[in-house]
Amino acid sequence: MLRINEDRLLTDLRELAAIGATTDGGVDRQALTESDIAARAWYRRKIAEADLEYAQDGAGNQSAILLSAPPSEKRILAGSHLDSVPNGGRYDGSLGVLVAFEALRALKDAGLRPPVTLEAVNFTDEESAIMGLMGSKAVVGQLTRTDFERSRVDVEELIRRFSAAGISPESMLAATRDDVLAWVELHIEQGTRLEDAGLDIGVVKAIVGIRSIHVTFRGEAAHAGTKPMELRRDALWGAAAFALRAREHVMRKYSPGVCNVGKISANPGAFNIVPAEVYCALEFRHDSEAEMDQMQADLIGLLEGCADEFGLSVTYEATPPVIPATMSESVMGAIERAADKLGLSHERMLSFAGHDTQNIADVAPAAMYFVPSVAGISHNPKELTSDADCVKGANLMLHTLLELCDISKSLPHIAPRRHRRS
Amino acid sequence: MLRINEDRLLTDLRELAAIGATTDGGVDRQALTESDIAARAWYRRKIAEADLEYAQDGAGNQSAILLSAPPSEKRILAGSHLDSVPNGGRYDGSLGVLVAFEALRALKDAGLRPPVTLEAVNFTDEESAIMGLMGSKAVVGQLTRTDFERSRVDVEELIRRFSAAGISPESMLAATRDDVLAWVELHIEQGTRLEDAGLDIGVVKAIVGIRSIHVTFRGEAAHAGTKPMELRRDALWGAAAFALRAREHVMRKYSPGVCNVGKISANPGAFNIVPAEVYCALEFRHDSEAEMDQMQADLIGLLEGCADEFGLSVTYEATPPVIPATMSESVMGAIERAADKLGLSHERMLSFAGHDTQNIADVAPAAMYFVPSVAGISHNPKELTSDADCVKGANLMLHTLLELCDISKSLPHIAPRRHRRS
Repeated sequence: MLRINEDRLLTDLRELAAIGATTDGGVDRQALTESDIAARAWYRRKIAEADLEYAQDGAGNQSAILLSAPPSEKRILAGSHLDSVPNGGRYDGSLGVLVAFEALRALKDAGLRPPVTLEAVNFTDEESAIMGLMGSKAVVGQLTRTDFERSRVDVEELIRRFSAAGISPESMLAATRDDVLAWVELHIEQGTRLEDAGLDIGVVKAIVGIRSIHVTFRGEAAHAGTKPMELRRDALWGAAAFALRAREHVMRKYSPGVCNVGKISANPGAFNIVPAEVYCALEFRHDSEAEMDQMQADLIGLLEGCADEFGLSVTYEATPPVIPATMSESVMGAIERAADKLGLSHERMLSFAGHDTQNIADVAPAAMYFVPSVAGISHNPKELTSDADCVKGANLMLHTLLELCDISKSLPHIAPRRHRRS
Repeated sequence: MLRINEDRLLTDLRELAAIGATTDGGVDRQALTESDIAARAWYRRKIAEADLEYAQDGAGNQSAILLSAPPSEKRILAGSHLDSVPNGGRYDGSLGVLVAFEALRALKDAGLRPPVTLEAVNFTDEESAIMGLMGSKAVVGQLTRTDFERSRVDVEELIRRFSAAGISPESMLAATRDDVLAWVELHIEQGTRLEDAGLDIGVVKAIVGIRSIHVTFRGEAAHAGTKPMELRRDALWGAAAFALRAREHVMRKYSPGVCNVGKISANPGAFNIVPAEVYCALEFRHDSEAEMDQMQADLIGLLEGCADEFGLSVTYEATPPVIPATMSESVMGAIERAADKLGLSHERMLSFAGHDTQNIADVAPAAMYFVPSVAGISHNPKELTSDADCVKGANLMLHTLLELCDISKSLPHIAPRRHRRS
């Protein structure tokens, strides 16, 4: 049975990890900064060395291309991203790009010409240094000028970074593709479910939706000595009660859905002043949009209950939500058949993290799979997937692509839902 | 019966409020900044106009002096402070200086020579722009070089501000006085107990002690999607539980003692990251040192309980405490007799805010009294004490000083406890 070249894959992983390497073994390759640009140059050079076609689209997404003969109108895409979070790990994203690239090289080495053109893609800015999932958003036509205004970097820096990659806001807005026949992504699990269950592969059945809400409790600033406690309207009391009740309620009613209060601050903010305002960043995730609506209603009910109880008011402002994405049965089936062929154990599970796959799922049959993360450590220099698991994941990519080629004529057409993430 | 000059007092209050005035009717006279220096110049000029003696000590404390004949060895001091918090009110501190000054002018106008020299003092930096209660701390010999290192402003700014007032760290350290026979301070209540009870005057029986503790809960940062909630070690859960339990416990067991969590922050601090660390600023106040020890033990027990419950660790670091200060029976008696003479209703109460009086109480018989604050509003441009209450407070100062003169020979000697605030 056809296999990828283990040594070549692991050597590539080590080479890539040296670009933007941090002293503690991680990488820092924030999107389109110097180190990410260096990683992109490295990938382009490796593609040339492999004698594969190279293309970069208007969003800066880079592809290694193995053309079918004759070149097919539509293409099967695989990949992930080479950028990282600040002081991140060497596997998140990188492994997904490298296994797709290695699969194409293995096919080429074997002298196989696929019936459908294959691409191994590096999507630009998955990790939110600029806006997150940017390259895949551009490809599916969901990027707007507003997204640039909401960017995490100022406009001069945005243009500087875009220029370094040879792109511009205009080219990004024009980067929509309509030639994607199917998509598959390998990613590290960033959790411990595979490790705990002793499984090789997690086949993702849905990527959870994410809602993020800015919450502000408002009471009344007061002298922390002279104001009797029973007369205080302490905004922190409401926020503290909410954090605990949200925890309890979501665990009881919405598991495996999750919630988090990740930021909190008090104003004026002094030992001797009763907090007048407390700001909290609330996030919650679930794989069902209907359940998320109910979750949101419940959480807002809790917010208002906590405010009432302590004589406070509360306001909340939702940021644009991420809609849950259901994975394609066809692509999941291809992954599972390939895993069975390779003797890899697998199980379906949810992805609680966002991935480029959720954007591509809007326009093409798409799915993804996880390989184990040692101790679930993620976004951390200590992030680790064993060499053996990297190799298993790469062989699974190779055979998933072959399965997708086999069923390429019967893959369903996805009608893009351009506005569902409004 | 002798009275102060109402018009002169209220005119002074208005003139002073114009120095460092903010657009919303408050004042911003942070210690030894330009506006505070202007207020100090104004006070010096008013003292000269009143034909009283003027003195400034090494700590920058300014005094109007009405000499006895012959000048007594020891002196009776009264006053407060002219500096303010950022965007504070026009009564806090200022009224206390002005009523003492007005009392001296009224005595002089009446041609009375007191049997003991009287001073109306403006203490430097009561409001903590630099370190708080600085001038009175210097006077009682509790200031050390360490205090300058802990200053809220950097050393260049410290020296710049000191120079503007004609003082230096060396002159401050040498500003100790041993000629204080007694001390009395008028202050606005900064609370609503007088207003609620329809009383004219609150005679302070003790100034509460204050303990401030930096608390840090530590758990583990995690992806707010991929980490199941039941496996999280979310530092905010511990902090939230503590804020609520501390509230409940202190209200139930230590009332009228109080506690406050005035600052809170989470690290790393993002919507999508489970907080690894949460910092809280915890403060609590009580008038009994023994009760404060028990309160602290209880609160630390709660901290540790909350940490345990959520799989966290917790560390705490106490800052130098403020010891509760019991007021002098002699001085309280003088205030109460004077109030009775003037037909002012009064009651004994605690001061939950810190005042220069608590420092002076270490070296001399000292007490203070409150006049009502409308709606208890404090450290706020809306801070207000009615003209009538200002005048009552000033007449009470005049007659309290006369009472203190009457009992000056029998006032007790206080043995300074130089190290009790270590």
